[in-house]
Amino acid sequence: MAETFGQRLNERLKEQGGLCLGIDPSSTTLLEWDRPDSVEGLEYFARALVELAIDEVAVIKPQVAYFERFGSQGYAVLEQVLAEARDAGLITIADAKRGDIGSTNQGYAQAWLDERSPLRADAVTVNPYLGVGSLIDFFDLAQSTERGVFVLAATSNAEGREIQRAHSDSGERIEEMVLRTIRDYNHRDEGFGSVGAVVGATRDDVAFDWESMAGPFLVPGVGVQGASVEQVARMFERCAKGTVIVPISRAICQAGPSKSALRDSIRRFADEVRDSF
Amino acid sequence: MAETFGQRLNERLKEQGGLCLGIDPSSTTLLEWDRPDSVEGLEYFARALVELAIDEVAVIKPQVAYFERFGSQGYAVLEQVLAEARDAGLITIADAKRGDIGSTNQGYAQAWLDERSPLRADAVTVNPYLGVGSLIDFFDLAQSTERGVFVLAATSNAEGREIQRAHSDSGERIEEMVLRTIRDYNHRDEGFGSVGAVVGATRDDVAFDWESMAGPFLVPGVGVQGASVEQVARMFERCAKGTVIVPISRAICQAGPSKSALRDSIRRFADEVRDSF
Repeated sequence: MAETFGQRLNERLKEQGGLCLGIDPSSTTLLEWDRPDSVEGLEYFARALVELAIDEVAVIKPQVAYFERFGSQGYAVLEQVLAEARDAGLITIADAKRGDIGSTNQGYAQAWLDERSPLRADAVTVNPYLGVGSLIDFFDLAQSTERGVFVLAATSNAEGREIQRAHSDSGERIEEMVLRTIRDYNHRDEGFGSVGAVVGATRDDVAFDWESMAGPFLVPGVGVQGASVEQVARMFERCAKGTVIVPISRAICQAGPSKSALRDSIRRFADEVRDSF
Repeated sequence: MAETFGQRLNERLKEQGGLCLGIDPSSTTLLEWDRPDSVEGLEYFARALVELAIDEVAVIKPQVAYFERFGSQGYAVLEQVLAEARDAGLITIADAKRGDIGSTNQGYAQAWLDERSPLRADAVTVNPYLGVGSLIDFFDLAQSTERGVFVLAATSNAEGREIQRAHSDSGERIEEMVLRTIRDYNHRDEGFGSVGAVVGATRDDVAFDWESMAGPFLVPGVGVQGASVEQVARMFERCAKGTVIVPISRAICQAGPSKSALRDSIRRFADEVRDSF
């Protein structure tokens, strides 16, 4: 039987550790690297990071917004970056946070998870405001193409609390409902699931048994956003190895543009994450 | 003083009526038009609709998902479609439903609302799951470039209810909180505001005084999704003219690919919407 995204991810995280290199070519970061805030700057930055990621980390996560701001030319760079990462055996998570109603989600799922799409990644992040159930086209296409989906659940930013901690009519908080629905989906099959949750590094207040998920967690917030690797390790200490992905971008990229300084920074964080989980 | 998006939109809706032609080049629709499900099919479909929209409607709404599924080439078509619509004086709403945390939203806002972006539209739809407050970069850039933002509030699809009708700690339902926050934003300035709400055509159960919004409503769900123009007109009957945008796509495109049949269909719906509000 073919290996699922969840199984492949789980094995790679166990082998190489949970650091994920975030590729976030914002205006600010390009300028810090003395690169123009242009398609050329974008391409230089993104390809340099992919090259550095090879052999050092299992997973990279391009932030789609920073490519989209250059329109079709930015997307051509993203396609190239995804192809290079694929050829090098890196696992790619397109951080796109897409989400709409059913038929439209087929379009988004095609974009990020269809084998024929130039933008195909190993997984994509999605947004549940229109209902976790509305995301079924992502889950289904991911399953049939051996890819994955990460659903926004509980984020660290203060503005997100009002919605995420609201109570549904059954009395459950929204973030708990999202997590439970993902868990139920993963438990339909045996083994490590292919639907993950995005949970902010400071959200140890969420009432959920992380170890019951049978799927991966994508945990942003470490580095310049203020959380520590140790904090994340404590939060997920009861989870099995290979469960948690820790994306870091700014804190690593600040070492650039020197490639040796960047490599040192990646290794330092990779070691810290590997030793902590 | 320069005219805002809200003022411009309001005037055009009063002059031309509230029908918005949705441009939804899904696989299904392209096949119904006997066009290949390819970039070429996409381009034919989207440009034919823009051409037909001119002089018939005030607003078009390309569904970004269906362009994104062809990657950078699909986006090149979208850029061309937006440019042609702009040149023809159509108001464009990029139905992208984007949303992330602060710094990333700057990237998305740049993509859709910055004067220099090839993807710039007159307005973009956004998703509030990470907090309405997290969308401030969209609101700010829209204000400074005289563009607009439509925030998902209360949708018609059944799966959305669990989240949108959840109660925040203050006892308010999430959809009401989103609507109230938009209203507060619009009331910071005088006149018709530039931040709108996406409200499904069947959501007359939402506890909100529509006429207090001082901004536009984008109301999908009419046509093949089951709601009638009359239903929407009744729901917003107390709102001033020029407030409600009714996007229709499938029900019109089903008349294609014959251009005369499409034109007749657009005119029929345009008249019905104009007469109802």
